[in-house]
Amino acid sequence: MKLTNPTSIQVGLLGMGTVGTGVFNVLMRNQSEIMRRAGCGIEVTMVADLDTERAKSLVGPNVQVVADARAIIANPDIAVVVELIGGYGIAKQLVLEAIEAGKHVVTANKALLAVHGTEIFAAAQRKGVMVAFEAAVAGGIPIIKALREGLSANRIEWVAGIINGTTNFILSEMRDKGLDFDVALKEAQRLGYAEADPTFDIQGVDAAHKAALMSAIAFGVPVQFEKAYIEGITALGAQDIRYAEQLGYRIKLLGITKKTAKGIELRVHPSLVPAKRLIANVEGAMNAVMVHCDALGTTLYYGKGAGSEPTASAVIADLVDIARLNTANAAQRVPYLAFQPDAIDNTPVLDMGQVVTSYYLRLNVADEAGVLASVTSILAKLDISIDAVLQREADEVGGEGATQTDLIILTHDCVESQMNLALAQMQQLTTVLSPITRIRKEELV
Amino acid sequence: MKLTNPTSIQVGLLGMGTVGTGVFNVLMRNQSEIMRRAGCGIEVTMVADLDTERAKSLVGPNVQVVADARAIIANPDIAVVVELIGGYGIAKQLVLEAIEAGKHVVTANKALLAVHGTEIFAAAQRKGVMVAFEAAVAGGIPIIKALREGLSANRIEWVAGIINGTTNFILSEMRDKGLDFDVALKEAQRLGYAEADPTFDIQGVDAAHKAALMSAIAFGVPVQFEKAYIEGITALGAQDIRYAEQLGYRIKLLGITKKTAKGIELRVHPSLVPAKRLIANVEGAMNAVMVHCDALGTTLYYGKGAGSEPTASAVIADLVDIARLNTANAAQRVPYLAFQPDAIDNTPVLDMGQVVTSYYLRLNVADEAGVLASVTSILAKLDISIDAVLQREADEVGGEGATQTDLIILTHDCVESQMNLALAQMQQLTTVLSPITRIRKEELV
Repeated sequence: MKLTNPTSIQVGLLGMGTVGTGVFNVLMRNQSEIMRRAGCGIEVTMVADLDTERAKSLVGPNVQVVADARAIIANPDIAVVVELIGGYGIAKQLVLEAIEAGKHVVTANKALLAVHGTEIFAAAQRKGVMVAFEAAVAGGIPIIKALREGLSANRIEWVAGIINGTTNFILSEMRDKGLDFDVALKEAQRLGYAEADPTFDIQGVDAAHKAALMSAIAFGVPVQFEKAYIEGITALGAQDIRYAEQLGYRIKLLGITKKTAKGIELRVHPSLVPAKRLIANVEGAMNAVMVHCDALGTTLYYGKGAGSEPTASAVIADLVDIARLNTANAAQRVPYLAFQPDAIDNTPVLDMGQVVTSYYLRLNVADEAGVLASVTSILAKLDISIDAVLQREADEVGGEGATQTDLIILTHDCVESQMNLALAQMQQLTTVLSPITRIRKEELV
Repeated sequence: MKLTNPTSIQVGLLGMGTVGTGVFNVLMRNQSEIMRRAGCGIEVTMVADLDTERAKSLVGPNVQVVADARAIIANPDIAVVVELIGGYGIAKQLVLEAIEAGKHVVTANKALLAVHGTEIFAAAQRKGVMVAFEAAVAGGIPIIKALREGLSANRIEWVAGIINGTTNFILSEMRDKGLDFDVALKEAQRLGYAEADPTFDIQGVDAAHKAALMSAIAFGVPVQFEKAYIEGITALGAQDIRYAEQLGYRIKLLGITKKTAKGIELRVHPSLVPAKRLIANVEGAMNAVMVHCDALGTTLYYGKGAGSEPTASAVIADLVDIARLNTANAAQRVPYLAFQPDAIDNTPVLDMGQVVTSYYLRLNVADEAGVLASVTSILAKLDISIDAVLQREADEVGGEGATQTDLIILTHDCVESQMNLALAQMQQLTTVLSPITRIRKEELV
């Protein structure tokens, strides 16, 4: 018996991994709930996976399982192709072929869209098909929908988000348990919050993929992952998390994009955030995105940013949207990047040196007279003003008889190139004993 | 010079108060941004307000100002009527007339939709027009869009929100400054967070309007404000806020709707919420809504729930959606109540006596032996199990030589009717000296 009914949209899934299985299971389990909303069925009729035996055991006898994804693309009954393979290689090729075949595409592949989005959206525009990617940013949280539709009245001024669950889990563990990065990473791997090769997560690349997508849809510019400034969390020390805490801050890996008079900031790095902000209290593997707009002010969207069914939730929401807009005029649909393709502008992405922010600095210094004066005079000469200083007693840091100590400085806003000069000069002081730690600070108001 | 251009949607505003002015101003200010997104202009060409002089001074010479709203409804060029008059009277009549005239309607009027939604949506369905109401719940936060579209893959299990800024401001002041309710209310009025007649807010009616709307779109049932259990914050004492704090909780006025095997819970009342939950840390006049779903788990949406431009943000987002779906087949549009009109079911709303929750009880008791035993034995006989007890020393509560004290009990889940029996029995103990305070407790997991 085929499940097909005349008022349903036929979907082909490429890749039957964690997310693919989630999409299939949630669609089956909530079939009637989804149909009551969409007004038509959404039905997976074909699945492509190299491991056809395993895929067959997951989807049962009513779904056709193929090893070759192109068999799905070639099937004229399939209206939507869901790409859940990941990566830039075959996934890109298949997405472009699906578009060429006139299929709508849903993908959770942030890496693909961050790097090849311009090419993919242009191809989709030519063929008049939709490419939906709610699952690509912050898992099931409907942040793409909020940015593209819910906030459409506003000039979006900035977006700042905890958009990588692995690193937020590691930072939460480091803070809660006083762990070092390496230990917290191992714990995250043991619990399944970090992959065996965690490079993309801990070095901030995954967050930068997502930030680049949010930047484009917030400001109406192309996806420009290649211009993002990216700094991960591997160099963070437990002591910086402690000092930040004492100063009323938490350290989070934020993906930030901001529109300024000079251009667009697009950056991923560890950031001190005031502990009283809601986003500072987002713990474990959870995600949250803050959006600041001219009319609405600040909103925040919080939830699970990864996992089989949370990600499936976003993929299926895209399928329901496609079912709704399927027969509508292409010009009436929500634009891929929130703004009409002919209204995308070329506001430049600023070099990191041009970014204005405030800073946390930790200097390991000799415990002798005049150190603070020499450091602060460098800052003063460069017009960098100081917000707070925390000077630790040498014996608190290094124990009885220690001759070095930590000097923590919080600065007010300054341009990053100026801070780079200051850091170079301070680093040359003979009383500064180790490389200076610099962490950016975001007040998020 | 008329601003009209051939590719724009003409809008008529009914009511040029705070929100109407916000809608007009934001549309003018962000005209190009909005057009870049919508692909067409959205233009207010007529405004109705009894004070035509004031309205003229606000909108300038390019907009036609009329005293009679029916002149807008009668204008065949107007595609969308935005109702910002408020209340159930003339607003209802005008919304129905606008629908009858084939206009799409956008409204921020939660009272109207909560009470007359069924009639209004049925009329709109007959005429094939849209009725959009993002601004009716939680101001500019796109929570209606999240519930109707972003979460469409899920079975929604419960929704719990801080959806009235006035009461959240008052509760925040009471906690921060140890104020009594009356004093905090006066402060809220002084700062413009509470109206001169704050009845609808402080008695929970406004929150219940919004909860009834969210209940309908979460579960696919009619809007049933008349079946909501409503309890405001007027009876809350500063001491309960303090005791809750000592037990690790904050008190928030929550609008809650939950789907259980027996039926739907729909209730507004002060609730103890674990202090570590994100929603417990939503302060001042801010709003936040938590939604718990089967696939996605818990998400939270936070932002400004009131005010001129935040509310305008939601109204305009609805206008952009209408511009997008205007020419689409009516069957393809997002259903008024998230579920297709013929798929709305009649799951009953439970009587408050059938609701299962846990409780905070404060008993003012004589400071003598056996009081705790007599109270706890009543609970035990009714199968209500105790989670925690906080017994205050008499002199801590009433000063040196006091003969009465406070006994605080936190219970585990039980059905409300059982708790009502327990309260009646405890109240009859001669050692219980005042009416018992009962506040419900929600763990929100």
